[in-house]
Amino acid sequence: MEQTLKVSLFGVTGYTAVELLRVLARHPHVEITSLISSSRAGERLEDVYPFFRETPLGKKTLLAEPREEFELAFLCLPHEASLEIVPSLISKGYRVIDLSGAYRIGEAGAYPEFYGFEHTHAGLLSEATYGLPEIFRKEIKDARLVANPGCYPTAALLALYPILKEVEVESVTVHAISGISGAGRKTRQRFHYPEMEENAFVYSVEKHRHTPEIEHVLKKLTTKEIRVRFTPTVVPMSRGMLSTAYVRCGEVNLKELYRETYAGEPFVKVVDEPPMTAWVLGTNLCFIYTFYDKRTETAVIVSAIDNLGKGASLQAIQNMNLMAGFEEETSLPTLPLFP
Amino acid sequence: MEQTLKVSLFGVTGYTAVELLRVLARHPHVEITSLISSSRAGERLEDVYPFFRETPLGKKTLLAEPREEFELAFLCLPHEASLEIVPSLISKGYRVIDLSGAYRIGEAGAYPEFYGFEHTHAGLLSEATYGLPEIFRKEIKDARLVANPGCYPTAALLALYPILKEVEVESVTVHAISGISGAGRKTRQRFHYPEMEENAFVYSVEKHRHTPEIEHVLKKLTTKEIRVRFTPTVVPMSRGMLSTAYVRCGEVNLKELYRETYAGEPFVKVVDEPPMTAWVLGTNLCFIYTFYDKRTETAVIVSAIDNLGKGASLQAIQNMNLMAGFEEETSLPTLPLFP
Amino acid sequence: MEQTLKVSLFGVTGYTAVELLRVLARHPHVEITSLISSSRAGERLEDVYPFFRETPLGKKTLLAEPREEFELAFLCLPHEASLEIVPSLISKGYRVIDLSGAYRIGEAGAYPEFYGFEHTHAGLLSEATYGLPEIFRKEIKDARLVANPGCYPTAALLALYPILKEVEVESVTVHAISGISGAGRKTRQRFHYPEMEENAFVYSVEKHRHTPEIEHVLKKLTTKEIRVRFTPTVVPMSRGMLSTAYVRCGEVNLKELYRETYAGEPFVKVVDEPPMTAWVLGTNLCFIYTFYDKRTETAVIVSAIDNLGKGASLQAIQNMNLMAGFEEETSLPTLPLFP
Amino acid sequence: MEQTLKVSLFGVTGYTAVELLRVLARHPHVEITSLISSSRAGERLEDVYPFFRETPLGKKTLLAEPREEFELAFLCLPHEASLEIVPSLISKGYRVIDLSGAYRIGEAGAYPEFYGFEHTHAGLLSEATYGLPEIFRKEIKDARLVANPGCYPTAALLALYPILKEVEVESVTVHAISGISGAGRKTRQRFHYPEMEENAFVYSVEKHRHTPEIEHVLKKLTTKEIRVRFTPTVVPMSRGMLSTAYVRCGEVNLKELYRETYAGEPFVKVVDEPPMTAWVLGTNLCFIYTFYDKRTETAVIVSAIDNLGKGASLQAIQNMNLMAGFEEETSLPTLPLFP
Repeated sequence: MEQTLKVSLFGVTGYTAVELLRVLARHPHVEITSLISSSRAGERLEDVYPFFRETPLGKKTLLAEPREEFELAFLCLPHEASLEIVPSLISKGYRVIDLSGAYRIGEAGAYPEFYGFEHTHAGLLSEATYGLPEIFRKEIKDARLVANPGCYPTAALLALYPILKEVEVESVTVHAISGISGAGRKTRQRFHYPEMEENAFVYSVEKHRHTPEIEHVLKKLTTKEIRVRFTPTVVPMSRGMLSTAYVRCGEVNLKELYRETYAGEPFVKVVDEPPMTAWVLGTNLCFIYTFYDKRTETAVIVSAIDNLGKGASLQAIQNMNLMAGFEEETSLPTLPLFP
Repeated sequence: MEQTLKVSLFGVTGYTAVELLRVLARHPHVEITSLISSSRAGERLEDVYPFFRETPLGKKTLLAEPREEFELAFLCLPHEASLEIVPSLISKGYRVIDLSGAYRIGEAGAYPEFYGFEHTHAGLLSEATYGLPEIFRKEIKDARLVANPGCYPTAALLALYPILKEVEVESVTVHAISGISGAGRKTRQRFHYPEMEENAFVYSVEKHRHTPEIEHVLKKLTTKEIRVRFTPTVVPMSRGMLSTAYVRCGEVNLKELYRETYAGEPFVKVVDEPPMTAWVLGTNLCFIYTFYDKRTETAVIVSAIDNLGKGASLQAIQNMNLMAGFEEETSLPTLPLFP
Repeated sequence: MEQTLKVSLFGVTGYTAVELLRVLARHPHVEITSLISSSRAGERLEDVYPFFRETPLGKKTLLAEPREEFELAFLCLPHEASLEIVPSLISKGYRVIDLSGAYRIGEAGAYPEFYGFEHTHAGLLSEATYGLPEIFRKEIKDARLVANPGCYPTAALLALYPILKEVEVESVTVHAISGISGAGRKTRQRFHYPEMEENAFVYSVEKHRHTPEIEHVLKKLTTKEIRVRFTPTVVPMSRGMLSTAYVRCGEVNLKELYRETYAGEPFVKVVDEPPMTAWVLGTNLCFIYTFYDKRTETAVIVSAIDNLGKGASLQAIQNMNLMAGFEEETSLPTLPLFP
Repeated sequence: MEQTLKVSLFGVTGYTAVELLRVLARHPHVEITSLISSSRAGERLEDVYPFFRETPLGKKTLLAEPREEFELAFLCLPHEASLEIVPSLISKGYRVIDLSGAYRIGEAGAYPEFYGFEHTHAGLLSEATYGLPEIFRKEIKDARLVANPGCYPTAALLALYPILKEVEVESVTVHAISGISGAGRKTRQRFHYPEMEENAFVYSVEKHRHTPEIEHVLKKLTTKEIRVRFTPTVVPMSRGMLSTAYVRCGEVNLKELYRETYAGEPFVKVVDEPPMTAWVLGTNLCFIYTFYDKRTETAVIVSAIDNLGKGASLQAIQNMNLMAGFEEETSLPTLPLFP
């Protein structure tokens, strides 16, 4: 019989934490111990999120620091906060799944430009495992520190991995659209309901921190410097991410390549029609569609995920399952809330 | 150890069936046998709903009639189809949970006016149990035929039950709003995305079939003829139902009355602030808020449910759990998909 | 030939001001002089709203105080700010249309309870004209100070006026739903896009400042104290308001009464089917539907407006047209943006 | 003084016709004579669209064929219907603005593949003028037949025109997203409100009829065969279009090039930040943002239009203004409905 894993959550008031709790609360082998929040410490979870009323989790008091025992920590913190707390958790022997970007890019030099801070723990960067199980499953199992991938990189890398590991390519362009929850819970004028309802726009066109994250993983996989032209877009939905990768290259049998690469993967489904984000709402799935366009010598690869599911919290639970030796699929939803 | 219950689903292409499948697929004591669809028989479930691809359910072929064994049938059929098929299922010894309105109103006489057909099986009407566990739990356990309540009646009756069973009232008005999924999967001009996105309207103001359903249950509970003024509204959301009941009556300690009535109920939560439909998305919960307005001598009772959750399919599974002797809460989500 | 009216706008960064500008910019007899904003003074309008780029209005610098001549001021200010500035504007001989609530309720005593401040200019309250032209057209023409009605009161009063002026009633309940723009431009957690997209809730159930506003006007019209049970709801749309009034009373020929009352009104349309808010998007229209329910002895009156149109800025322009002696309909949209 | 132009509308029940009527109804030099509809002939406009009630247009009876005089016809018809009716209208001396695709692509050979029919009036194809005033203003003024551009080509061509007329390019990729109204008024399962609300997907990846339309115009402008990789996406909004063009080429001073090209254009605004579709809602505007990405040697050009505005009906009115010799900007909205 499997043992119970004690986990604590840091940064419990944000969207990724709530999504973790939704699924962890039903996980048969997990016990949620401390819920940490610096901004709401002393309040109960149900005071922050009233839908937890009259549940055991809802009655829990949020703490400034963990008081109960735990073995693994989920960090749902701002990048800078994660940067600082990870070393001390690791040194105390805890395993860590960090949902921030603080340990995702292997090169410390990228941080000042893309995150606005010096990376003060560069040594740990090389130890961090990039938590994309379809590529790094083996490393994740034994990792002490998993850097849980960003939502855009998850969608883009699952789309690019099969072709880039096989084929010489000329150029890579990724155009992705995301639901607004990807921008977090903090209110902003542009995400005020009346202004976002009938609206769409691209942002961070000149520079987005997910570009070096994608490129760094591609370099690891191919040993080549591949420059990715990446543009993110927001559209009026809460959850959902649709990524379209355009790869200029010679003709490839994409359908076969993708089916083979992902055969046996429990959460990646290669399909023959362009996927809808509604198919993955609330799940850990990634649907992928491919088409080689001979007219323009372009491989077009479309991937759909839930930005809070496979793009964040549910992938984090997939990583946890691997790290703890549980069945990889335990508790992870694979049927969407539809409609 | 609990046994496995074999269930079949009739009318598998609609929204209530998909919601049943989402939750039944993870139910530890249920085996889904035949999936019935007259319109899509011969196709596979994944052909109708691509998000079932590469799942065991997705590979199942839809049948015109059940071929495998089963003990309990969920009917997700049009009213007329349910009307006809229920007697034959019952006579063969199957237990039935009917999600249509065909057996909800105890008086056959209401059917021509509100459903447009003569009720040809009036005898079964009196045998049918109204599947609102918070009121009829005992009867449901042994029922052969459960008439699963309509979404509006579920929200309204949970709001009205405590006060009407205790207090003499002068008049009852219920104003409710619903997400569009309540209108079903069939396309209609008014529910075409561009026309419904920034739109809201009341409908069936003069006559709605949920009015006699509510009144019939109230009569059963109070032995009085209470006439309910009921108005339904649709607003631009997919799921969610918010019902506001206005009951003219003398002063009542509503908060105490409601907390006492629903103490121990696993799916009804009485709260001190008006609930949001977002709190119940994808769950079997009902949140209730009350306020007695002395100025106008009106009890105001607000209830929030997911019209496809507690308002339809998840309540059907709650009924199934009761009928089969499983833990009532088995597999039923109580944390919403948020955001 | 008609003269040009010089107008200035105070509080130009909010939604009601932008809606004023959209229509005033095309008004043939209006010249917009100063644009006032305390929070963004010194910036240009196009810096606040980029869609004004490369327009004459967009190039205008926002001012802390008016520098150019004007004859009439539109106040799009917080209640307290309007309260203070109105007397000085009036005393300088300007005419004023105040879109706040500071001068709407004729009784100063209501302000501490409903607005949280003492009304320091009670004398002006009695001079203020309530800017609902369908009821107070004559008074508006000569008014120095027009208190532009709230959105909920506009929808409710146009629905209640015909019946209450004719019939003895027992009780009045108004249940209304509104788009989120009615809550203004300031961001709030509950109106952050991901939390409001699939959500609906009632609010201010115990006390809403539009209740005394409605009751005060009804008293003026009927000389009776009519207590209104009023509940506001927000639903996931940007603009639009749907109000349902339930009036317990003896049988009335509502259709005839409403058609007669509003015959010749350019902006009120009495229709035979429940109206949709989509019919009024961006217009100054109000659609009204009536039904007398004999079963419950209730007159049901449904009205639909655009909360920023007839519910705020476009009604303000209608008032301006009347005050300035222009054709009442000048520049006011009557066809919605559809879809 | 300018004369009045008599216009008739063919295919009056669709979205592009309603948008035409919204603006033409206020056009000072236009008289709308016959409203043609084969499917609803005999009914009145207000029977189809209740928001026309109690307006002169609303009372007009829809006709199977025009009965009143007119000089110019707007065709809002299916492609095949336009194909057949255009020659007879032209031969009778009417001027025609065709909003379908029947006369947009100069090469008849493209029609079987992309439209599914043989082009039976190839002679007229060469006479048709492509109605994009920013490029073909001069020709439009004297045209008998204007092929009003598709929404995607309008957004893409305004983005590509300045760079392609100046620079040698290696490859062109256009990724565009559209509101659902672009798919027309006919209901479809995927655009049923509950299924589209929280959803996004690409479609027609392998072949879309707007690809040859874009390529044909580019060839006319550059005399080169430029192959465009074009992918359309739908997202949950009613109106709005955002197009991102990726052009691989040597470094260009894009900002200067675009400002110069569109200096003096009344409806194209070159801006320094990525535009939002909310900025153009209900207008005839196109906002353009450019960025040259040195890392990937890619010019990124983002354009935003309202797919029913500059992307269809309002551009048609701009064309009409040019053809009739009116001021080009007459009656065309340039301020959005916001929020």
